[in-house]
Amino acid sequence: MTKHIHGGDVYRYENYLDFSSNCNPLGLPDGVRSAIIQAVDSVVHYPDVQCEKLKKAIGQYEQVPEGQIVCGNGAAEVIFSVCLAAKPKRALLPAPTFAEYQQALESVGCAVEYVRLDEKKGFVLDEAILRQVEKTRPDVVFVCNPNNPTGILTEKQLLERLLHLCEQTETLLVLDECFLDFVEQPEQYTMKEYLSKTDNLLIVKAFTKRYAMAGVRLGYGLTGDETLAQQMELVTQPWNVSGLAQEAGIAALKETAYVKRGQELIVGERHYLQEQLRNLGLQLYDSSANYLFFLGPEDLPERMKKHKILIRDCSNYPNLRKGFCRIAVRTHEENEQLINALKGELEWQKQL
Amino acid sequence: MTKHIHGGDVYRYENYLDFSSNCNPLGLPDGVRSAIIQAVDSVVHYPDVQCEKLKKAIGQYEQVPEGQIVCGNGAAEVIFSVCLAAKPKRALLPAPTFAEYQQALESVGCAVEYVRLDEKKGFVLDEAILRQVEKTRPDVVFVCNPNNPTGILTEKQLLERLLHLCEQTETLLVLDECFLDFVEQPEQYTMKEYLSKTDNLLIVKAFTKRYAMAGVRLGYGLTGDETLAQQMELVTQPWNVSGLAQEAGIAALKETAYVKRGQELIVGERHYLQEQLRNLGLQLYDSSANYLFFLGPEDLPERMKKHKILIRDCSNYPNLRKGFCRIAVRTHEENEQLINALKGELEWQKQL
Repeated sequence: MTKHIHGGDVYRYENYLDFSSNCNPLGLPDGVRSAIIQAVDSVVHYPDVQCEKLKKAIGQYEQVPEGQIVCGNGAAEVIFSVCLAAKPKRALLPAPTFAEYQQALESVGCAVEYVRLDEKKGFVLDEAILRQVEKTRPDVVFVCNPNNPTGILTEKQLLERLLHLCEQTETLLVLDECFLDFVEQPEQYTMKEYLSKTDNLLIVKAFTKRYAMAGVRLGYGLTGDETLAQQMELVTQPWNVSGLAQEAGIAALKETAYVKRGQELIVGERHYLQEQLRNLGLQLYDSSANYLFFLGPEDLPERMKKHKILIRDCSNYPNLRKGFCRIAVRTHEENEQLINALKGELEWQKQL
Repeated sequence: MTKHIHGGDVYRYENYLDFSSNCNPLGLPDGVRSAIIQAVDSVVHYPDVQCEKLKKAIGQYEQVPEGQIVCGNGAAEVIFSVCLAAKPKRALLPAPTFAEYQQALESVGCAVEYVRLDEKKGFVLDEAILRQVEKTRPDVVFVCNPNNPTGILTEKQLLERLLHLCEQTETLLVLDECFLDFVEQPEQYTMKEYLSKTDNLLIVKAFTKRYAMAGVRLGYGLTGDETLAQQMELVTQPWNVSGLAQEAGIAALKETAYVKRGQELIVGERHYLQEQLRNLGLQLYDSSANYLFFLGPEDLPERMKKHKILIRDCSNYPNLRKGFCRIAVRTHEENEQLINALKGELEWQKQL
């Protein structure tokens, strides 16, 4: 087990423009900022172990019963706690996908198999995952929709077939919908309606990206299997969600206009960036998320640092190699800065 | 595995005076409050996965190398992550002690044996623990010093013999010194000097109690076994310590005058409360911590609720029963309020 490389390292690269992590480019909503400041004096108390008010707010927002909600110290903790609660022996992961699924699975000694997403087919998740689940009958399968780092959406019909198959093979489907808030029609892709119909589904969601509050740490899981939800809480320390995070989360869920504005900004800017990146001759994949994935020169991430810009080098993901990069969609001005820096680097390369 | 009962439930009991959880009665230090408020806008970034500045500050404060420090989302997370990293099969716990050791051990499927602390001997940890370690050779033994919920200190000489024995039996000694900051001469009890001499010791410490910042969530572990430290980080999500907690922690470590004032207040008020509780005829145990432990009427915690006061019913601890209670040491005015309420209840009882 090795420690993974992560984006967003603004600590070793101070004052760099950070395109390597993917949060709402609108910044922290005012309501969340106020809620944190107002909650400061309440930190003398332990946080509510039951997350009662927060679960009530999430339940209303997601339209699910509170017993189906598990709150976490970020979505990442939800991923770790489902592994610890379900104690899978064998897991199936697409490659590439979010690196922490593997880290969480290995932390409980689970063997990991991959369904390799084909570069030639644009890294789309297809029926190969069904065949592999049927053949290997894993205890758990993780799918990130849209996928990270590619941004590629999986069709709902395929996810429905996968869930149906998982019920037959007694596999838990962990479906990470953290980035679904930023696609154009999330309601066409979410599998939330199946929560009440199956015990084999856990949906993971984050406040991190939707409300640009990555430093607060707040995420949640939704599952129709209330026993699983209880087990996930039992294998986690009682005070895992800080008092500040609970208050921030309750305030964030009221920020509906902010979310809509963020989504509109991202859709527009994604199209702008896609056009620009194509014009630069980069091999761009078909992202629907708030980040874009492309193949460029092998040393592009290093070269962008000269411009004080961080982009995500994706070469440490299984099934990827040097040159695969991910960039966040940010504000227009910031995106222009990125494009100008890329132009300088790529045109310089053409002259070689 | 069942969910434990906790103190500090100010959420179901709003505006109650909370004697059921044990934090510094001075409240949040000004420097910590300012640091959290100043850090609000930085939460758009993911927290530093390396906790670089925080580890540097803790290293200076504790005088240990940074590689021997593991930061956690509260001390409770450190307890869970050492269990997940060390994967013990058999553990030894004093009874009673802090309930989360057992919860953490059971979350990784570890069998738990107890060394029962004898009520007749005042719940003091004695050589019985040495005999049991020698006999059963557990993978891990937890000791809380001073113990929770009793507040009773374990002599350093016994801990030294225990550590020496643990080296022979290949047992990891997890020593929880979270409440040591509040005893009169902590330097006479801490085992910190052994960190550099052994691989069999993990010391757990919290910001929670020392700086009254339980709602922020920040704790740490210290171990001379740097491989264990790395493993504990690998089995934990990368962003476990929030950005707000990292900034709060760095500011807190500068609050040396506050800590001294808190310690002096607690020593004085502990003596006041001890005298008062004895005068009330309660069977009081010999706490050196910022909380007191006694045997009273079975329904005392319920009866105190009529006075809008929460005290900790300790009957859910192994080896304890109804009537065992723990109260925090708070400010003089608050302690008087508690004593007056207790007087009313206990004198009323005498008249029956």
